[in-house]
Amino acid sequence: MSATTLGTLEHVKPGDIETRSFEIIVEELRQRGISLDPATAPVIMRAIHTTADFDYAENLLFSPGAMQAGVEALKAGASVVTDTTMAQSGINKRALARLGGEALNFIRDPEVMQEAHEKGITRSAVAMEKAASLGRPLIYAVGNAPTALVQLRELIDKGMATPPALIIGVPVGFVNVTESKELIMELENVPWIVARGRKGGSNVAAAIVNALLYVATDNVRE
Amino acid sequence: MSATTLGTLEHVKPGDIETRSFEIIVEELRQRGISLDPATAPVIMRAIHTTADFDYAENLLFSPGAMQAGVEALKAGASVVTDTTMAQSGINKRALARLGGEALNFIRDPEVMQEAHEKGITRSAVAMEKAASLGRPLIYAVGNAPTALVQLRELIDKGMATPPALIIGVPVGFVNVTESKELIMELENVPWIVARGRKGGSNVAAAIVNALLYVATDNVRE
Repeated sequence: MSATTLGTLEHVKPGDIETRSFEIIVEELRQRGISLDPATAPVIMRAIHTTADFDYAENLLFSPGAMQAGVEALKAGASVVTDTTMAQSGINKRALARLGGEALNFIRDPEVMQEAHEKGITRSAVAMEKAASLGRPLIYAVGNAPTALVQLRELIDKGMATPPALIIGVPVGFVNVTESKELIMELENVPWIVARGRKGGSNVAAAIVNALLYVATDNVRE
Repeated sequence: MSATTLGTLEHVKPGDIETRSFEIIVEELRQRGISLDPATAPVIMRAIHTTADFDYAENLLFSPGAMQAGVEALKAGASVVTDTTMAQSGINKRALARLGGEALNFIRDPEVMQEAHEKGITRSAVAMEKAASLGRPLIYAVGNAPTALVQLRELIDKGMATPPALIIGVPVGFVNVTESKELIMELENVPWIVARGRKGGSNVAAAIVNALLYVATDNVRE
């Protein structure tokens, strides 16, 4: 390997890389004149850490008490349902299991697939309905499908027996994505965390769940 | 639901959302005065589609012939190895299987975990070594761990028996990420696609693999 290039690598132990990364993020936020609310900073910092995109310092919005609602739900053993297997894959399932929760996903559920096919709607939307029918307090983490957020809004408007403990509304994209998030931000009785605008993703959805998990477990990692 | 907000949703069938999204991306690139090379456009467009981040129009760089190398490898049945289960999860495994390839990941391989623990290095780095030891032509898709790229560079410099068919180097982050990508961009005899700078991610790695898959299968989806 060329000594010149190799010489530019910082010597940081695997376990220290995250700490060092967060120091850099804090410093750059300071340089940009952005000071985060300490209550919501863990979520915003982790979204930036996952994307290297400082837009998340501005576009992540929280309903009053959303952080606390998410953390308390996780502490009480709530499970998390995602709209993609990719978001499910990114969640720290060990930390979630320690609190008694699971990462659920119904996108490949045969009933969900059949119903989506018959109705000509997305599997993500039907998967939300399936999750709601469990009648358990859940955190809904949506990183991909705006239709999942529209479905959640419709279910809530019709009166869900067990409303979401928290909605993480961070689908990414160009068609109906921004609008679907606005539908969630209109909710007054369900806590939400939303990435306003087009940006988001399965990685961001998982990062937000993990940030809440680390607050809920006092940042004790295995 | 408030009729006002619902009225803002565009009526697009699930199967047409991607087409409409790509039209919007093309139009916005035009407005920004960016015209893409048709050869590499499928990868760049899909990275933007996955992140809603137009930076990928500028930061995605390709070694000469990298697109063709990736597409030909996939057509010949090459498998793809990722550094995270999240990237593995995002790959269209059905399209990959139709061409004869698999999405591999060794991050939870007991031997890999043991060796990483003993040597105090990342599992991602050891996982690359394990993949290289298979002696099969592979596409290495790295969306998270700069150490995986450093490891690949070292293996190549030592003379891999079966060099990578393509390296997709798109880890995200703040510590050694930019430098690890420069190490890959110095390679002259191994094709690479790199997201220069800090940005990237498991979602971007999967999106690039999928873009290559769709070119390789003439965009026929099931």
